[in-house]
This record gives sequence, C-alpha cells and structure tokens, in this order.
Amino acid sequence: MADDATLPPTRADTDLSALVAAVGADLVVTDPDVLASYAHDDAEWAPYGRPLALVRPETSEQVRAAVAWCAEHRVPVIARGAGTGLSGGANAVDGALMLSLERMTRVLEVSTVERWVRVQPGVVNDHLRAAVAEQGLWYPPDPASSPWSTIGGNIATNAGGMCCVKYGVTGDYVLELEIVTAAGELTRVGRRTAKGVAGYDLCSLIVGSEGTLAIVTEAVLRLRPLPAEPITVAGYFTSVVDAGNAVRAVAAAGLVPSTFELVDKHCLAAVDAWKHMGLSVEAEIVLIARTDVPGDGGLAEATGLVQCFEEAGATFVAQSSDPQESEALYAARRLAYPAVERLGPVLTEDVCVPMAKVPEMLSRIEEIAQRYDVTIANVAHVGDGNLHPLLIVPPNDEEAKAHAQAAFEEVITATLQMGGTVTGEHGVGLLKLPGLLRELSPTTLAMHHAVKAALDPHGILNPGKVIPVPDPS
Amino acid sequence: MADDATLPPTRADTDLSALVAAVGADLVVTDPDVLASYAHDDAEWAPYGRPLALVRPETSEQVRAAVAWCAEHRVPVIARGAGTGLSGGANAVDGALMLSLERMTRVLEVSTVERWVRVQPGVVNDHLRAAVAEQGLWYPPDPASSPWSTIGGNIATNAGGMCCVKYGVTGDYVLELEIVTAAGELTRVGRRTAKGVAGYDLCSLIVGSEGTLAIVTEAVLRLRPLPAEPITVAGYFTSVVDAGNAVRAVAAAGLVPSTFELVDKHCLAAVDAWKHMGLSVEAEIVLIARTDVPGDGGLAEATGLVQCFEEAGATFVAQSSDPQESEALYAARRLAYPAVERLGPVLTEDVCVPMAKVPEMLSRIEEIAQRYDVTIANVAHVGDGNLHPLLIVPPNDEEAKAHAQAAFEEVITATLQMGGTVTGEHGVGLLKLPGLLRELSPTTLAMHHAVKAALDPHGILNPGKVIPVPDPS
Repeated sequence: MADDATLPPTRADTDLSALVAAVGADLVVTDPDVLASYAHDDAEWAPYGRPLALVRPETSEQVRAAVAWCAEHRVPVIARGAGTGLSGGANAVDGALMLSLERMTRVLEVSTVERWVRVQPGVVNDHLRAAVAEQGLWYPPDPASSPWSTIGGNIATNAGGMCCVKYGVTGDYVLELEIVTAAGELTRVGRRTAKGVAGYDLCSLIVGSEGTLAIVTEAVLRLRPLPAEPITVAGYFTSVVDAGNAVRAVAAAGLVPSTFELVDKHCLAAVDAWKHMGLSVEAEIVLIARTDVPGDGGLAEATGLVQCFEEAGATFVAQSSDPQESEALYAARRLAYPAVERLGPVLTEDVCVPMAKVPEMLSRIEEIAQRYDVTIANVAHVGDGNLHPLLIVPPNDEEAKAHAQAAFEEVITATLQMGGTVTGEHGVGLLKLPGLLRELSPTTLAMHHAVKAALDPHGILNPGKVIPVPDPS
Repeated sequence: MADDATLPPTRADTDLSALVAAVGADLVVTDPDVLASYAHDDAEWAPYGRPLALVRPETSEQVRAAVAWCAEHRVPVIARGAGTGLSGGANAVDGALMLSLERMTRVLEVSTVERWVRVQPGVVNDHLRAAVAEQGLWYPPDPASSPWSTIGGNIATNAGGMCCVKYGVTGDYVLELEIVTAAGELTRVGRRTAKGVAGYDLCSLIVGSEGTLAIVTEAVLRLRPLPAEPITVAGYFTSVVDAGNAVRAVAAAGLVPSTFELVDKHCLAAVDAWKHMGLSVEAEIVLIARTDVPGDGGLAEATGLVQCFEEAGATFVAQSSDPQESEALYAARRLAYPAVERLGPVLTEDVCVPMAKVPEMLSRIEEIAQRYDVTIANVAHVGDGNLHPLLIVPPNDEEAKAHAQAAFEEVITATLQMGGTVTGEHGVGLLKLPGLLRELSPTTLAMHHAVKAALDPHGILNPGKVIPVPDPS
C-alpha cells in the first residue's frame, strides 16, 4: 500500500540503528509475531500490511524522536492505541513504523476548579472516567469500547457513544493537544481556557484525523460535574413505524434525553437465544431513553418520554430510577452486541442519517438484508440518527462474506440518498474510504488533500487513511 | 497593506467591467463615500485601507462570481456583515473588493424535528433567534452585538456571549456551511446529521477564520428547545478577592450557571453617573449568575449560588425568578457598556484566563491602569474567565491614546503570563495580531501559514488578518 510516488518504498532491511539510538533499544520491537499482533485493528476484512518495526514510547519526547526518524527516512508512521477501531484506521501499511501509545497511560493533572484533566494518549477511557469521578467530575464521551479503548484513539476518531445525544462527542471535550507534527516537531494547539479564538481551530482539525495530520502526545480534556442518577424509560413497539413516531414525538416535545437508544428484532432474538429473556416475543423494536435532569425536572422529562412512547403505540412502557431496575430495562441494549457476536464474524456499519429518517433507513436495511441473504441486526443511537447495522456472516463462508460486503456498500448508498453520512463515530479508516469519496464534493475533497499536503508534505502520517494517497500524476 | 509579494498591488483604475457583468451593475458600488463607510469595523484605532469597490450580493452564486473575479485578477476580497467587529477583522486593505453580505438575510428552512435552521450569512443574530423561537426553538450564541451583528460575522469570529458558560460558542452550533473557496468554487463542508466523522473537520477550521480561508454563503445551525425561565442571583462584594472566592466556590460546588457575569467598580460608577442607581456605594464588584434548570433543580441551583456568594462574604445577595425583578438585578451588567461609552472612545480588550485567575488578573489590570494613567473598567464573562477590560480615553487626546495602546499590550502580557489567550471571543483581526504571534509557538504558527497557503494559495482572502501576510522571502 505504501508503494507510491509520494512515499518511496521502505524495505525490511531499513537500518533501524538511529531509531534505536534515539528512543532506546528496549522500546523498539522487530519480532514478526509481535509485529503481526500490532498490524491491524478490530475492523473485519480491512486490509493491512507488514510493519517494519514497532515502537512503544513512554514519553512525548520519544514519540517526537521516532517521528523525526520517520520524517528523515520517509518511513510511514501509524499511531495506535488499543486497536479497538472498527474501520481499519490503525492498520499497518507495508514498511510502516507502528507507534503504539499504550504505555503512555498517565493522568498528569486534574483541575477541579477549571474542570479539565491533562492526560497521556494511552490512558483507557474508563480509567480516565474513574480517575476524575473520584474528584466529583465527569468525562462524558462513552464509546462502547470504553473499557479498552484509549483517549488517543478516541481523539483520532472523534469517538461518540451513548451520551452524545445530550453531551456531544469527544471533540467537544478537547481543549488543548500536545502533538508531534509530520516533521517531528513537538508543539501545542488549542488552549486551556474555557474560550478562545486566537488563530485557526487546529485542535478540531486534528481531532478525528486518524493520525494523518499529527500524532497526539497529550490532551487537556474538558470535564463536567457528575450528573444526577438517571431515570430510565423503556418502550416496546410492534412496528418500526410506531417506534419512529415515538422518536419524532420526543423531539417535538422539546425533550433532551441523556441517552436514546434503539434495539431491533434481530438483536432481541440474539439476546433471547443467549439469555432467554423473551424479549423478541414482546417486541419488534425496543427504545430506551434516559433523563439525568435533577429533581422534579427529571421526573417531568421521564413522564414526557413515557407519554411519547404510549401515544406512539408502545405495547409496554416501564420507567425506573432504581439503579438495578434501570439496568434491567437497559439489558436489551447492553447485551445486543455481544449476543450478535456469538452468531459469527460481525461487520459493523456506522452510518448516520437525519433522526426522523431512522424508520425509513431500517426498512431499507431490511430490504437490503433480504436481497443479499445476509442477517443485519441493528442497534442505534436513535436520538442522533446514528445506526450500527451489524452484518453477521457464518464463519469461513466466502460467498456470504462477499454478499455482506456488497450489502455494506448498499447501506452506504441508502444513507447518502437520505442526506446522511457514511460514518457517525467510527471514522473513515479504510472501510469507509469508498463511501467518503461518494459523500464529499470534488472541491471539498481537494480541500482535504490540500490540508493533508500542507501539514504532512511527504505523506508519512498514516498514509491512505481518511483520504486516498494522492495520485502520483 | 496589500502591497507585498504574494499579492500584486491593485489600482483604483482596475477594470471592473467583468465583475459588473458577472454580478450585475446594481450590486457593484464605487462611490468613495459609500466605500469609506464600508472600509472598517467598530475596532477603535485599527488601521484600514481604501477599497477598490463594494459588492452587495444577494445569492451564493453572486458571491461565487465575485470571488472568482477576484481570484482571476488577484484582487483581495474581504467579506463583512454588519461591521460590529472589535478587532479590525473586516477592515479594508488598499485595493480590496469589499463583499458585504448584509442583503443575504433569508431564513431558508427550519427543521423542528432535527432541530436546525438553514440561513443566509447576513441574517441578524436576534432576527434568527426570533424566527426559531416562534417554533419553540432556541439558538443560544448571544454576543452583546446580537441586535445588529450577523450570523456570518458571528461564524467568522466564532462569537461567544453570555450563554457560553453553559451552552458554548457559535462553533458549537455550526453543523454545515456552504462556502466559496479562494478559487471561486462553491461547495459544502460539515453535514446536517447530529454526528459525523467523514473527513477532516473543515467546518470548525473555517469557523473563526475571519474570512481568510473561505467565505461562508450559507449555514446550517443546530438549535435547542427553548430553556426554562431563568432565576437570577446577584451578589455585591466589597473586594475582588471575595468575589474571586465566590467564583471558585461555584465551580467547586459543581454548579453550572447558564450565565455568570462580573461588573467592576469602574463600570458601577459609570452606571451611577448615568442612571443614579447607587451601585458603586454598595459594591466594588457585582456578580450576576443565572440558572435555567427547570423545576426544583433550578431552585436548588439558585440556592447553591446564593450560598456560595454569602459564604464568600457578599454584603448583599438577591434572588428572583420574576422576569422584571430578574432584569433589575441584571441592570448593572446590561448598562455597563453603554455607560462606559458615554465617557469617551473605548478600546475593548477580550482576554481569557483560567477562571480562578480572574481576581489576580483584575489586580494586574488595575495596576496597569494606574501606571499608564488610563481608566480601565471591567466587565467579564467570569464563568469562562473571559474579561473585557474597557480602556477609556478622553476624545481627541493623542497622548492618552498612546498610553491606552501601551496598556492594551501590557494586559496581553499579563494574560499570557497566566496561561491565558489574547482573544476569547472577538477574534484576532488586526488588533490581536501582535498578541497572537506571542501566544503561538513558531511551529504552531507555521502550521497556520501552511493551512492558509493550502486553502488560499494566492493570499486573496482577507490578507493580513488572523496571521500576517507571509514574508516575500
């Protein structure tokens, strides 16, 4: 993949001695088995190459030295965290240096007054949340990978999660970044103050850029006070149309749930097959919403949610503020993904459409599934219109895999026809590159290439991700 | 100003016939008196040049045609809205085409379900708010200029306001932009879905770039449901230290006021001199906070604010949810700026420091004011650490003006020493250009220049704003 005009081919016998001298021998790995385990993320079927070496730095200075070595030798460099990505964004290209930030796990500083935390990129999302919760503070972004994924990876993909519908995505919490540029220089972008407009918003430009514009070595993240204990409202629906009407009614009523999720019949069946909860007998679709408004405002919002669900024709609606009961109502959502994974390799889609179009999108997905004879189960952050169609394929079935890949592209076609986007929160990586080229206008794509060329003139930073490697002509 | 290597000088006799043919004769103005009135914004003492002509387009296509003409003839082009800017960001350079978007005032579409509005850039902030309020929706960003300033200008400077402390700034509400590039091409960046990570965040890059990277011709803005009627809490303090302790206590208590403002003794005296309210006899500093949490959660937050103010030593604390009483408590803040403007030309600072450093910053400002014998009154969005020191100069006093300008730069020095930023919400324009060069590292500044050169290779878009015109060498 790295064999192009911008990036001269690197060879396995590239002399690593200067790199070893710069970062220390104990941080550089060339064992092929270890390299293989760092060569790709969790994206099913995304291609990956053979890395040249692996560096596991512990300091920003070591990252800087490694990237400077790559810049000098025109070696592609691919930063990665826990490798939980679902788009192939951290996959190796041939001859690349893999830069694993997994050892940079320190929570460096918490300001309770200014409400921010300063961390290294390798800290795991849940570890960060636990560290700040001890001080009464909350880091909202909560991708499903939060027990494993790192903040660096979350920033690289601008990760979302359950909380986005009320609290926004990772980028909404990034105040300042320490980065290493493509030239191997250490600098900072953004600021720690609550506001600031001094210069271009390079911080937002780097968030979500998947390590193609700079490598993040430290982040200052905005925090909030811990929210009130939520009230959970679950509604069972016998049709997609009814559930869609409930979603529209919630918006029309001016309600802002702190979580608003959807689980479809295929997921309910998968959960039943595993846990025997009888969900799929009761419902085609389950909607689960939460409110964290404190006091009677929260009770009023919960009542509003119940009313929207009932008036849209829910066959069963339950509400609870008791943590255990609340968790039971949430079980269908929590168990959906692991239940589906038991059935075979899962190719996870991540399309986002206007919220009101979710029912139409689910119908289109069902039609595509039937046409390609592939099972597609759906969970969705329905309040955001962000669907995760889960394409399930029997193990070792090449024909089924080909069908699933064709269905994956057709889901993208349907999304674009509805004014949606090919990736809501997982990133472009490799799997969404064809979709991105369909989504962006030629002029906007040219702006992407111009920005990439400006900040990474030799194309060494994670080449071929987010946007294609430019044509040599 | 335009006389540099990147940008060949244009002359007053430049042939406008192709421009007139492209956009229509009735939209092109060359009358010198009219041009003069469009040559600068509201920034005191910021330099400005003599424009070549003015175009007042009504459609995106006319903007595109005008910029394409500028691109072809290497004529600098400066977009402007209402001209309420306070940094000189919309000031003319010699030979520039002024592009006033004031006629592009249409509210094109409101989606109540998806909660967004699509507008032309010339719509006035308050007009937009009124239009969406009719449908139960709210556009939060509320710069003090909201009765006059346009959304295009708000986007160009990433304008803030009173609501930022809880609801964020303009950029937090920009979903999608239609833009004209420096090459005169019309395209879109961002998206209308609630989430999306397809490609680089060019939308955030353009927000706050003051027309130096692209010109915005249409914006899709995120909306919220209308908030609950606020409860206002006002506290009078006899010392800056006490007020500072109150601000810290609010943060430590995990309270999130929807507005949190500070008015200092100089402003109180100016209000008294005008309205005879006796404020300055009662207090050195007034803090005013609001909560818009609905129901008893709001009452609890108001009680928390009162407690924080009282425990920090407030000599008087009042609370009200009655709109008229609430407005009376807010009068000191609302009247501060017009009261100060009665005293002479005002140079408005816009620095932002860590919130807990506001008391120290106010002491530094007082010391600077005494040293330079200049009156500096302060209003602040204290919850954000965003101060607006107002430097007041007697009319037609050149020596006093020189002192004020020196004091202005010293306030910036103090800000940078405290880890602050030279502009919180007004933008860099021309007045903060020296400060910006002190704030950014050489590497980060080089990234700015690289991005500017990538998106505006001939340097025609508002040259010399945000970052300097590059050295010809």
